[in-house]
Amino acid sequence: MAQQLEQVRHSLAHLLAAAVQKHFPDAKRTLGPAIENGFYYDFLFPTPISDHDLEKIERTMREILPSWTSFEHKVVSEDEARSAFVGNEFKQELIGDIVAKGEKLTLYTSGGFTDLCRGGHVENPAHDIPADSFKLEKLAGAYWRGDETKAQLTRIYGLAFESKEKLDAYLTMVEEAKKRDHKILGPALDLFTFSDLVGAGLPLWTPKGTLLRNVLDDFVWSLRAKRGYMKVEIPHITKKDLYVTSGHWEKFKDDLFRITTREKHEFAMKPMNCPHHTQIYARKQWSYRELPQRYANTTMCYRDEQSGELSGLSRVRSFAQDDAHVFCRMSQAREEFLKVWDIVHEFYTPFGFELRVRLSRHDPAQPEKYLGDPQRWETAESMLQDIIAEKKVDAIDGLGEAAFYGPKLDFLAQDSLGREWQVATIQLDMNMPERFDLTCVNEKAEKERIVMIHAAIMGSIERFLSIAIEHFAGAFPLWLAPVQVAVLPISEKQLEYAQSVSTKLTEAGFRVELRDENESIGKKIRAAEMMKIPYLLVVGAKEAEAQAVAVRQRGAGDTGAISLDAFIEKAKGEVAQKSQ
Amino acid sequence: MAQQLEQVRHSLAHLLAAAVQKHFPDAKRTLGPAIENGFYYDFLFPTPISDHDLEKIERTMREILPSWTSFEHKVVSEDEARSAFVGNEFKQELIGDIVAKGEKLTLYTSGGFTDLCRGGHVENPAHDIPADSFKLEKLAGAYWRGDETKAQLTRIYGLAFESKEKLDAYLTMVEEAKKRDHKILGPALDLFTFSDLVGAGLPLWTPKGTLLRNVLDDFVWSLRAKRGYMKVEIPHITKKDLYVTSGHWEKFKDDLFRITTREKHEFAMKPMNCPHHTQIYARKQWSYRELPQRYANTTMCYRDEQSGELSGLSRVRSFAQDDAHVFCRMSQAREEFLKVWDIVHEFYTPFGFELRVRLSRHDPAQPEKYLGDPQRWETAESMLQDIIAEKKVDAIDGLGEAAFYGPKLDFLAQDSLGREWQVATIQLDMNMPERFDLTCVNEKAEKERIVMIHAAIMGSIERFLSIAIEHFAGAFPLWLAPVQVAVLPISEKQLEYAQSVSTKLTEAGFRVELRDENESIGKKIRAAEMMKIPYLLVVGAKEAEAQAVAVRQRGAGDTGAISLDAFIEKAKGEVAQKSQ
Repeated sequence: MAQQLEQVRHSLAHLLAAAVQKHFPDAKRTLGPAIENGFYYDFLFPTPISDHDLEKIERTMREILPSWTSFEHKVVSEDEARSAFVGNEFKQELIGDIVAKGEKLTLYTSGGFTDLCRGGHVENPAHDIPADSFKLEKLAGAYWRGDETKAQLTRIYGLAFESKEKLDAYLTMVEEAKKRDHKILGPALDLFTFSDLVGAGLPLWTPKGTLLRNVLDDFVWSLRAKRGYMKVEIPHITKKDLYVTSGHWEKFKDDLFRITTREKHEFAMKPMNCPHHTQIYARKQWSYRELPQRYANTTMCYRDEQSGELSGLSRVRSFAQDDAHVFCRMSQAREEFLKVWDIVHEFYTPFGFELRVRLSRHDPAQPEKYLGDPQRWETAESMLQDIIAEKKVDAIDGLGEAAFYGPKLDFLAQDSLGREWQVATIQLDMNMPERFDLTCVNEKAEKERIVMIHAAIMGSIERFLSIAIEHFAGAFPLWLAPVQVAVLPISEKQLEYAQSVSTKLTEAGFRVELRDENESIGKKIRAAEMMKIPYLLVVGAKEAEAQAVAVRQRGAGDTGAISLDAFIEKAKGEVAQKSQ
Repeated sequence: MAQQLEQVRHSLAHLLAAAVQKHFPDAKRTLGPAIENGFYYDFLFPTPISDHDLEKIERTMREILPSWTSFEHKVVSEDEARSAFVGNEFKQELIGDIVAKGEKLTLYTSGGFTDLCRGGHVENPAHDIPADSFKLEKLAGAYWRGDETKAQLTRIYGLAFESKEKLDAYLTMVEEAKKRDHKILGPALDLFTFSDLVGAGLPLWTPKGTLLRNVLDDFVWSLRAKRGYMKVEIPHITKKDLYVTSGHWEKFKDDLFRITTREKHEFAMKPMNCPHHTQIYARKQWSYRELPQRYANTTMCYRDEQSGELSGLSRVRSFAQDDAHVFCRMSQAREEFLKVWDIVHEFYTPFGFELRVRLSRHDPAQPEKYLGDPQRWETAESMLQDIIAEKKVDAIDGLGEAAFYGPKLDFLAQDSLGREWQVATIQLDMNMPERFDLTCVNEKAEKERIVMIHAAIMGSIERFLSIAIEHFAGAFPLWLAPVQVAVLPISEKQLEYAQSVSTKLTEAGFRVELRDENESIGKKIRAAEMMKIPYLLVVGAKEAEAQAVAVRQRGAGDTGAISLDAFIEKAKGEVAQKSQ
């Protein structure tokens, strides 16, 4: 966030505390930082407060804001500081900590309200903060210093932006996001479900959801197949040995589902696929003429996430990666990277996502986080830099965002609400081939160390779907919709014709639902519309007679009757073009 | 095995012991039963014997056989029995056991050789056993009473059949089976591999093996899709709770890979899919009008098999089931069963497997092995009986072969070597729906208990492939072969034309390999033949000129040059018909 906005938010945290103290002089202040989208402040209230109080406090904030015309600060002694917060054990503890670290104690004052603070405010709040650009958002519980054995506090969240317009835009986006929440839309559209018996974070995929997954996965595969990829298959478990060799055991141990077999061997469920794929490559000695070997594999991965961190499809314990690994010579890596780059763009374009690229580099200041020597990292990162230069894009610099085995190009997609999500990734790995001793025999009949490229297009299908469901608000474009066309006979008399329409559409390759239940046509239309099906074909006596269908297009309503053949032609074109 | 043949084999065990005692008077006899394909006898030899000794013993068996013209038996007292085996602690132990059980002690004598025995011999060995119908097979180690803490014995195995012809046929089959061993052919044809780091029983599937799996799975799916099945997807793990409810925890606990999560919850990897699928069905209340719901799912299952029991693809720790579950009313079960029956026959016919059906019933004498009450079992089994009657087939009676939740129709396939394997299975389950409280709302608006049908066509793809690889000796028919056509340019000058041939074949939907390595055409042909590719298309200057290909068909050799278009036409026809 821009520095000015951060200062606004930080200043508002002070203003919030001042307003709270006006209404609740006995409330004890603790800490109040700026955060994404706004700020918060944690208090210990003598008696609980309610949402109703928030309005009051917000009003008071606006009332006193004009009097906050400057921020003044003063370096004070420990005694001075302590006497400013008599009876507030939280501030006393903070003062003790600052003194223990040998740092300076500073008090900041504005509008007559003083707080212990390190600074970072706007110069003139009354002038720099538009009174309509902020809003108190909600109350929440919080523990002092995030420690559940310590005092339970009340956190007041506020939103703050540069202007009222930006605040309103944010509120509209949040409203819209709520309506699009995949956790609600997914089950409502019958795409997935959860079971208490199976457990949290383990989605079960219904027929419609499975269709959706497969359409996406087949699309990725079609882009890979024409670039020489081949499918492979692997088990979801392995002996510990594989991960000791790969380094995952050391870096990733706590996130693994671990198994002790009846023979007391240690196994683990795979959290990723690269180590398994190395073992397929390693089955023979390859000649340089046989490289690259490009292995693609959409397969479930497992991570032992904590219950509290699970969320819909965004954070799960089982997720399918559309993973691929290219085993090639270093001299081939650039071209293979560019191929994946093209796949990523071909895949994301039909969704209408805008992509940005991040070069995720290692952090030389934290060498313990990475495998392999610095020279190798430099070579790998400079190759990625070249690719970005060649593609003439503005890449985000992702210092410290590399995988532990190599640098990455990460792709960030902006959805229809302007939110940005990390999606595809291409990674250059010179470490795994070293650890597994992967080679080819080169032109000189010598063994040559190869490199590995990790490439996931959707990343996790679950996470991608959580994004896609919200991006489209569940109204998937025709090519992607699990049910593309619903056929709705007006009465039982048209059932036979409706069935023939349905059969003909199925034979033409469409995913079709025939609504033959004994209901009024109005009810049938509403039910199909609820499911956000792109095309509803209503067939009555007139349509049956004329071998036609009355078309209701999602979003456009009734578009009139056309011949079934004409409809098929038109819809096929839409699918082929992946129109949105 | 027929009773007469069992008696022959049992008698030959006596004859073997007699011959051994002639050569090794100090060898101590223990036990010698009839087994599948022959017999064995376990001895304690004072010094180890070798394969060379087997020939000698076998010769002696044939020499003394003519003098074995009857078997006489005598009930004896404990003292008499003990004095017949002075110095043989094994026989002494057996005598003690028989006495302890209060059973009669009997000695059987033929050709002057006496053994402790319960009987079951041919009346006149010299007459009833053709001297050329048996053969000593091999030596092996064995523990007294199978207990590794007890004496280590030497086991001599013999083969015995009704006639020399049958013995020879068996020996030929064994020879042939060795040549076809999927554990050798699979890696040789580059279909799968194992890794010491990943572990035993966990096959890794190469591109060719994965193609083969997918061709098979797509074939099953094509048969299911036209019968209204829908794909679903599930995670490979679950909380213990699911299996406690299903009954798997109780019946299956030791075979499960179990996981304790970081939060100390108990999870398990799924050994089968039915409990997960019930939870997809259970996501809503169904109307009878929406049934049957038919869920198909090819997905990996996991069982914690012991290392010693693992074998190639026949017995693995990870295997993909081509599983399906139909949720329907009892009144719909018959029709759904018949549909699966048709799928099974449509699937197996192109392989040339002959199928037999077994009605696998519960064993009323062992009620503790099964869930649910006897009445329900009777209803279920009588429905399966009706289906068999309707299909007019001779079913094998499989008493005690039922699943723990219901009776099954199992299909046994006879392969090209005459061996029989259990493959497909259709199971009627009235218990799981009870345990998970699965219902539909019927015409009277009442909740009605439904039934579940479990249906796997290949069963496990791994096991099915182990059978198919040996059945075809790796020479898969065109429709199934992972590489269907290899294109072999004679020299570099034809490389461009060879590439265009390869592209045209790929576009026509064939799986093609272009052998563009810098080798002689003879070497290329031999390499492609080693991989048992159905068609090799050799292209030289003449073929390039004429837009033709010189065809070498596997098994038929060089069949001359034809136009590429004509070849494509012919090969497409073969694939469409799934010719063998």
